Amino acid sequence: MVLYFIGLGLADERDITVRGLEAVRGCSRIYLEAYTSILLVQKENLEKYYGKEVIVADREMVESQVDAILSGADKEDVAFLVVGDPFGATTHTDLQLRAKALGIPVSVIHNASIMNAVGACGLQLYRYGEAVSIVFFTESWRPDSFYPRIAANRQRGLHTLCLLDIKVKEPSLESLARGRKVYEPARYMTVNTAIEQLLEIEEDRKEGAYGPDTLCVGVARIGSDTQQIVAGTMSELAGVDFGPPLHSLIIAGETHVIEQEILAQYRTQPF
Amino acid sequence: MVLYFIGLGLADERDITVRGLEAVRGCSRIYLEAYTSILLVQKENLEKYYGKEVIVADREMVESQVDAILSGADKEDVAFLVVGDPFGATTHTDLQLRAKALGIPVSVIHNASIMNAVGACGLQLYRYGEAVSIVFFTESWRPDSFYPRIAANRQRGLHTLCLLDIKVKEPSLESLARGRKVYEPARYMTVNTAIEQLLEIEEDRKEGAYGPDTLCVGVARIGSDTQQIVAGTMSELAGVDFGPPLHSLIIAGETHVIEQEILAQYRTQPF
Repeated sequence: MVLYFIGLGLADERDITVRGLEAVRGCSRIYLEAYTSILLVQKENLEKYYGKEVIVADREMVESQVDAILSGADKEDVAFLVVGDPFGATTHTDLQLRAKALGIPVSVIHNASIMNAVGACGLQLYRYGEAVSIVFFTESWRPDSFYPRIAANRQRGLHTLCLLDIKVKEPSLESLARGRKVYEPARYMTVNTAIEQLLEIEEDRKEGAYGPDTLCVGVARIGSDTQQIVAGTMSELAGVDFGPPLHSLIIAGETHVIEQEILAQYRTQPF
Repeated sequence: MVLYFIGLGLADERDITVRGLEAVRGCSRIYLEAYTSILLVQKENLEKYYGKEVIVADREMVESQVDAILSGADKEDVAFLVVGDPFGATTHTDLQLRAKALGIPVSVIHNASIMNAVGACGLQLYRYGEAVSIVFFTESWRPDSFYPRIAANRQRGLHTLCLLDIKVKEPSLESLARGRKVYEPARYMTVNTAIEQLLEIEEDRKEGAYGPDTLCVGVARIGSDTQQIVAGTMSELAGVDFGPPLHSLIIAGETHVIEQEILAQYRTQPF
């Protein structure tokens, strides 16, 4: 009789908390939210681990089939699994509000997300300003609304976490124009693409929010065994291979001695 | 042969991840860091749950007995447990760097911390500016260096997470003056004290960073069964009883419709 929002953490099936695992095992239906982030493990591994079927909930399902997800949750427990922490994004707010409106108790089981695990790179969490999202450029759309935010963070000496675009099961524009949805293959923005787009924007705007020599940290697959953290200037990182997704980029603000000492371990070049 | 930094999450012994629990159970020595935050559960519960002794590491131990903690970690696994996520604070950096210098592999197991779990209150994580720490006023010391940071966040419409002071095993100034350490009882700042101090600072400075009518959210024991979230103006929240620690305060910036809809559930007064 509870709708559980359960954070799965960052990497594999064992990153769920013990409390989360116990809740999942008591649920009648288990949904896996799979469009605001991706789990670095296959759904089949989760099913084997839980001993239960897992229903992949794509954006369409979560946005248009809320009733189906909530159906019966007043009589039995239902789990809604989210990669990272359940409230890293606004996306699940509607589901939460709808459940409450129907009198279904909601319980949240937190976990690590990139928003706090990024502390692993050595730049201190309380010295970050506003986080930004960087989306893929298209031929006609080159969004740069995050630029003033990076500039404002850097003016105050603060670091900026750049969350990089994830396109999972997006209908192609061409197919929408024809009135029949055909999905594009999944795409994940690399640190390299993010830097390329950022430098293009700086070249256009020339306001000096950052540049090729700005110290950054590229991180990939944080929390997994293949985690990669590399510190260097934007130009240096542009050429680094970070491997498979997910990637994030941190644009450093002013760095303190202790931050520099940790970053030195991850540096492409010595300070 | 690994020094594990393991996040314990927010509330009780079952908030550890499955991966973290497996690591703990394979360790020869287990330290519990107990001065930058507090666990809402007794050490004895952890020991029972792990089937192992847990050594409480206070500030003195972590700062002056690094060698003892690392001793043997090249031959057997040692765990360093941290409430929340291991890298919510800089504090453990030195231990990490020393281990690496000695050639001891370090492994980090992430978990939820207040830095991301605060998303539960409905204000979106990517709309927070720099976080601030509010420390207890003393008769002669009334630190307010966070004031310009709150002001800058609010000028940009951003929310501010205020981390509230924790005093665990602090030697009293009087005893230090006498050259013999006597420890003060543990103290945790309440939302009420934080608001009182904040309003006093505003009255002194009169720069209008915030005021009695500013919308805030007080949160207590996030992630536990007794979690409390109350939204209201500073004056309204000043009179709310949030119960036992830990407390945090969020000073809202501009709120979007969806944020208001969630906050309405936690409001002392209707919007």
